[in-house]
Order: sequence, then C-alpha cells, then structure tokens
Amino acid sequence: MESTPVDWNPISLSDDVRSHITFNADGLVPAIAQEVETGEVLMMAWMNAESLDRTLAEGRMVYWSRSRSELWRKGDTSGDHQSVREAYYDCDGDTLLFKVVQHGGGACHTGERTCFFRSLGEVE
Amino acid sequence: MESTPVDWNPISLSDDVRSHITFNADGLVPAIAQEVETGEVLMMAWMNAESLDRTLAEGRMVYWSRSRSELWRKGDTSGDHQSVREAYYDCDGDTLLFKVVQHGGGACHTGERTCFFRSLGEVE
Repeated sequence: MESTPVDWNPISLSDDVRSHITFNADGLVPAIAQEVETGEVLMMAWMNAESLDRTLAEGRMVYWSRSRSELWRKGDTSGDHQSVREAYYDCDGDTLLFKVVQHGGGACHTGERTCFFRSLGEVE
Repeated sequence: MESTPVDWNPISLSDDVRSHITFNADGLVPAIAQEVETGEVLMMAWMNAESLDRTLAEGRMVYWSRSRSELWRKGDTSGDHQSVREAYYDCDGDTLLFKVVQHGGGACHTGERTCFFRSLGEVE
C-alpha cells in the first residue's frame, strides 16, 4: 500500500469563505492548478463541492471528472499527484486557483509538464 | 480619441489550430489571463468564437460577458487593458491560456492586481 506523501497538508475552510464559492448550474467550479515554484499554469479542471472538500481535507488536488462522473484524485492512476500549497478564490467566487507541487512526470495525460503546451499562434 | 496602444499585435489562427478549440454547450471556452512578466494568474473569464477572433485580431483580451451578453473589450471602461504576448490551448482544446501585459491598475474590478486575492485558508 502506497504511503501518503508527507507534503499533503490540509486547509481548513471557514463557513464564511465557503459561502463565497459559487458553483455553476451543474454544481461545478473551475479550478486552475499553477506550479508554485515556477508559476507555470499546469491545467484547468472542475470541482464539485465534494471534490473541493476532499482537496482541502487531503491537501492534494481532487477534481471532478465530468466524463466519468466521479471524483478524480489526480495522480492515483498516473502517479502525477498535485500537493496543495496555496488556495485562492476569485472576486466573483466562481473560479479557484491552487498553487501546487507537481509530482511525477507532469500534469498532462500526454506526458507534457503542462496541459497548455500548444500555441494558438505567434504574435506578429 | 484614444490611440491604439503600440503593443497590440495580432496572432494569426490557422484553420487547423481553430479546429482543436472546443466551445461548450453555450458556445463558450474559459480563458485564463496570466501576467507574462510575473507569472501571476490575473483572472479567468469566458470567450465565444467572436471574442476569440477579436482577441487574436486585435492583440488584446476581448472576453464575452455572460452577465451582459456582449463582447467585453477588457479595459475599455477601466483603462485596464490586457495586451496579448502568448496564447495557448490545452490538451483537450477546451481551455485557453493567454500571457498578457496588464495595463492600468490591475485585472480586477475591485482594484486588486489579480482577481485571486483572497485565500481559501492556510495550509496547516
């Protein structure tokens, strides 16, 4: 049985802060994961209330998989865990930003470090 | 009449790249704006196909305002324009990342530099 990484540390969410988080009609809120050390934006995925609670309680990123309709403990299959270091919500309370330590090969299922590895085009 | 900032430079989007961008059922795709110099994530808002086209053609961030149902040329009211320096799409083609120069006071309508200025809580 795999031991819990030592850098998974919980965050306590107050009822006041919780009341500022707005979930959309599907009960989801977008969550951006940014590498704390480099500032690189790694990925954006979705959380429902349960995955947000699990993320904060477990100190590692737990998304909601819209395609599989289940909790998605990032890295449990790939080993590419994300440990939470800082967590923010935006002015409207409808987007979350997590600064994380990216373990394993990277955030992207393609093997890339970040999911944003393709350019839309070059500035002219 | 205000002159166009000299750092608004277009990006040409190829038909091949365009075919990889997936808009949701409302015809929207989330767009993350990150400050190119500091790496700070400034905001997340939405684009429809027209606002993406305008963003790339004009070289400045043009979102779609869901509350007003209209194109939102960031900064036209506040002066807080965002000039595009780099533009990426993610592995699923359903999220965009723009590296921008933030002009004016900041990205947030509250006057803060970033919309993510409030912490969900501290790591224990």
